[in-house]
Amino acid sequence: MLPEQGRSQITPIEWRDGVLRILDQTRLPAHAVYFEATDCCAVADAIHRLAVRGAPLIGIAAAYALALAARRGDDLETAAATLAATRPTAVNLRWALDRCLKAGGGADGVAAEAARIHAEQIAADARMGELGAALIADGATVLTHCNAGGLATGGIGSALGVIKTAHRQGKRIRALVDETRPLLQGARLTAWELAAEGVPHEIIVDAAAAGLIARGAVHAVITGADRIAANGDVANKVGTYGLALAAQAHGVPFYVAAPISTIDRHTPDGARIEIEERGADEVLSYAGARTAPHGAAARNPAFDVTPAALVTAIITERGVLRAPYAAAIRRVAQPPAVAR
Amino acid sequence: MLPEQGRSQITPIEWRDGVLRILDQTRLPAHAVYFEATDCCAVADAIHRLAVRGAPLIGIAAAYALALAARRGDDLETAAATLAATRPTAVNLRWALDRCLKAGGGADGVAAEAARIHAEQIAADARMGELGAALIADGATVLTHCNAGGLATGGIGSALGVIKTAHRQGKRIRALVDETRPLLQGARLTAWELAAEGVPHEIIVDAAAAGLIARGAVHAVITGADRIAANGDVANKVGTYGLALAAQAHGVPFYVAAPISTIDRHTPDGARIEIEERGADEVLSYAGARTAPHGAAARNPAFDVTPAALVTAIITERGVLRAPYAAAIRRVAQPPAVAR
Repeated sequence: MLPEQGRSQITPIEWRDGVLRILDQTRLPAHAVYFEATDCCAVADAIHRLAVRGAPLIGIAAAYALALAARRGDDLETAAATLAATRPTAVNLRWALDRCLKAGGGADGVAAEAARIHAEQIAADARMGELGAALIADGATVLTHCNAGGLATGGIGSALGVIKTAHRQGKRIRALVDETRPLLQGARLTAWELAAEGVPHEIIVDAAAAGLIARGAVHAVITGADRIAANGDVANKVGTYGLALAAQAHGVPFYVAAPISTIDRHTPDGARIEIEERGADEVLSYAGARTAPHGAAARNPAFDVTPAALVTAIITERGVLRAPYAAAIRRVAQPPAVAR
Repeated sequence: MLPEQGRSQITPIEWRDGVLRILDQTRLPAHAVYFEATDCCAVADAIHRLAVRGAPLIGIAAAYALALAARRGDDLETAAATLAATRPTAVNLRWALDRCLKAGGGADGVAAEAARIHAEQIAADARMGELGAALIADGATVLTHCNAGGLATGGIGSALGVIKTAHRQGKRIRALVDETRPLLQGARLTAWELAAEGVPHEIIVDAAAAGLIARGAVHAVITGADRIAANGDVANKVGTYGLALAAQAHGVPFYVAAPISTIDRHTPDGARIEIEERGADEVLSYAGARTAPHGAAARNPAFDVTPAALVTAIITERGVLRAPYAAAIRRVAQPPAVAR
């Protein structure tokens, strides 16, 4: 099932009369099904099981969840702690919760702040798209990993927003899409968004990327980010680091597109970023089909860290940052500072 | 379903009274089912659909297939051409066919030559295991990719033979197993062999390898090879090159274990190795379940090339080769020269 062909707006989350409608991304691309969340726990569960995912979007979802809690008269600090515990790596989650906790004005004030965060992200996506598209040459094949699209942000996407914007500008862009095991966000979600947008694309297994880069089949790599440290180190979906190594080995630019809210100035470098380890079943099976022998064990780190030295540029809504990143980040990432 | 726990011999192929029994590896690990091939075409089909796979083992299977053709009075040159066309990258296939075509002695002569190739591989595996195990420290965690085990060779395996031998020597070895999309030979086959052998192991998605190497979780990487060029460049299962890049970035040794028959002195370097492109469906689905949107396209290169400069050593049955590889390969890889 595809969203309408053309410049369709993907709506992964929608606040309507005090109810949060969430597109269940675990069921894409076969089914585009929404469910309604009326309390904070339902949203926390949706974040935990990746029905709603992508660092910016889980921030937005958590903000609306706090608005639901406020309407019900729940304790907001407790609700925020529950939401913050769902995913440890993405920093937008805590950033959005902090903003809503400080909003004041009761339930309406929290809901208004959540809507502001949502609207700001849509605007940030558009700006990242413009700034990033200027870096993509006509005729380029761009490789991306996981899903940093509208399904991850609520707008046109961060990394995918750059590809879409270049395409809308008339550049003849092709995309190579890493399938992104274990949960196949590339094959399921990014391919779905690119089809809706009409961007020519091909899916590859993650392990094929390095060889294709070596053969000259890729002109740029662009990914999103789940957290960017103060020195420019980037935590993103597991597999990103290997792409950055391959890009560097062959002189291919490696870009990260992420909103300012993904930058965590309180984390000095990538070594301090907590890497979420998810359940073994995601690795040992897919869509219910068991593939490994009975009794097999697995490790499942959900993210990895790409050192700033491998990043050609970080595309934000406040400009394209380049090394030295510590100074560039200080320049754009305050105010507002990230509070804890 | 597991092979018997302990030092069980895995028998992926068996010649019995003029019938070739083949373990259908596409059905592992859930089912260990053999089928009987009585003519060359059945074997060619089995190789093509990866019911029998692994560079050394497809050489052995093709040799027996030629014996089947000889018993039936088929034209051997035609049969050899059919078999050679099944997989373009592995060189053992053509090497084994050439040996059998030159064997003489009619059907019995071809069958005897096939059995000799089979027995030589079992002995080569044992020797590679001994030589390679000396490179693996007690307590090491060794990462491997795809399946370079007994299921790929007919003996104890090449890369996996090294791990098994170190384990049998009492070294406390742990293995990390890349699942190896798209066909999951790591999760399905390597994990199955390691469980039978009692080697502690964990499966990871392919994209997790680089991050784990960066975090110090891997002490050595070891893979097999489908073809090694005269300069030491290594063609192996797609994803091998990315592992080699990550290993080099973190000072982790990257070993290749392969019999001399995998060395192709007629291919000067990796750029001349034909890379098999397989069907898109392998990428667009997982264990039979469609994952990508309807109409999505995919690229599916089955192999990539790791430059010799990234290879710490090549473990063969005639010794452990180190750079400069061109000279080392000239020393061990003749006689016999590879004929065409």
